[in-house]
Amino acid sequence: VTKARSNKPLTTEERELWHALKKLSDVSLASVGNTIEAETGLSGADFGILSRLVELGDGVLPQQSLQASLGWQKSRLSHQLTRMETRKLLRRCESETGRRVHVEILPKGTATIEAAYPVHAIAVREYVLKHIDAKEGAVLIQLVRRLEKSLEN
Amino acid sequence: VTKARSNKPLTTEERELWHALKKLSDVSLASVGNTIEAETGLSGADFGILSRLVELGDGVLPQQSLQASLGWQKSRLSHQLTRMETRKLLRRCESETGRRVHVEILPKGTATIEAAYPVHAIAVREYVLKHIDAKEGAVLIQLVRRLEKSLEN
Repeated sequence: VTKARSNKPLTTEERELWHALKKLSDVSLASVGNTIEAETGLSGADFGILSRLVELGDGVLPQQSLQASLGWQKSRLSHQLTRMETRKLLRRCESETGRRVHVEILPKGTATIEAAYPVHAIAVREYVLKHIDAKEGAVLIQLVRRLEKSLEN
Repeated sequence: VTKARSNKPLTTEERELWHALKKLSDVSLASVGNTIEAETGLSGADFGILSRLVELGDGVLPQQSLQASLGWQKSRLSHQLTRMETRKLLRRCESETGRRVHVEILPKGTATIEAAYPVHAIAVREYVLKHIDAKEGAVLIQLVRRLEKSLEN
């Protein structure tokens, strides 16, 4: 949309797009998160973390991999993990060399996430995926890949 | 993408789109947030709140309007406002009837946000808007509107 490097205030159009980008995740997560929380007691963030531990790491992941997968900032993840440790859903442990911190799901975490999956699948389809056509979905996926790639450089 | 109400596990395609949606905001915010924080000391969340107070409310907004504009959950906003009150960037105050809580920017907040605007504009253009073409931007804005509307129902 914009090519020039400028420090002038964002135009109305630039601002609209920027706000839409920032809102998209929150809008998508709101109904799904509320449904899961009401039916299982897990927040959207809890669910995102537990499901990644199970799906990507078979129960355990380096904290850094978890962070990369979520696309969160380090401090946000750290606060969230502390809250989840208190609730005995997971624990952090040092690797054998003590160099890397791993995150490991605990039995209570496994039981809770298994019960939450069907609730999550219904909510994601009803509140979000149903409202996005295939073409829009392709645009979104491409865009995220492009932005991620530009961040790496 | 999906029409049927089903509690079966999300397919690979459904999962990819869902993860892209959740990631888009975080990916967009990461570089912009890091730049603003490095150059002004404001986090992305600080900036979002202060700029809304100035732009939407001329310095003061009902907490509920702020929440609606950010699209955040109530507890997330509440924690964030508490941190910003401690730093004397803003304060919460009750309306005359005591029914609604208002959020008011303080002089330190005003000075900080004014200094941050040019930094923000450069970063938003360089790290995000430059990578999105007009057609993609239109798809995103439409999609956010549609999801917001479906949430209202």
